Amino acid sequence: MLVIVSYDVNTEDPTGRRRLRHVAKICKDYGQRIQKSVFECNVDSTKLTVLKQRLLAEYDEDTDSLCFFNLGNKYQNKVSHYGSNSVVNLDEPVIF
Amino acid sequence: MLVIVSYDVNTEDPTGRRRLRHVAKICKDYGQRIQKSVFECNVDSTKLTVLKQRLLAEYDEDTDSLCFFNLGNKYQNKVSHYGSNSVVNLDEPVIF
Repeated sequence: MLVIVSYDVNTEDPTGRRRLRHVAKICKDYGQRIQKSVFECNVDSTKLTVLKQRLLAEYDEDTDSLCFFNLGNKYQNKVSHYGSNSVVNLDEPVIF
Repeated sequence: MLVIVSYDVNTEDPTGRRRLRHVAKICKDYGQRIQKSVFECNVDSTKLTVLKQRLLAEYDEDTDSLCFFNLGNKYQNKVSHYGSNSVVNLDEPVIF
């Protein structure tokens, strides 16, 4: 099934910036980034449970937000993307 | 039906920052903000068509990204939110 994961992580302090990297890293294990803080994850129910557990263990419930949108197995006509999908990976160091 | 709208708008220049405000403003006409760049919009198919048209007319397809995820009418157990839902409204001027 396709599960959309979106997150807002408070990056006002270094621990927040580390959480942001960890949250993105966890999501990468299960799917692909489609926007800065939005991932498409193709998972079964077991993997979804583990993905949620890992993310909930990482994020800060007082300052961060996590959303999961389950589009099920027949999702092809439920999803539409427009525009640029060149996602700037903000949580990796930018090397000039 | 519940449609999730998520967007990345390139705000490197003033026109981008204006697009960001306009995109958020359009989404507010149809639903509520749940994260910085994610809205939940409860719309019928006609309203969804107009919402898409308005957003596609506003965003820049070369630099911005727009995603629509249609969760249908029975969405209650397809959506889960965790953590803080105090969304900092970054596109309105912050007054101290």
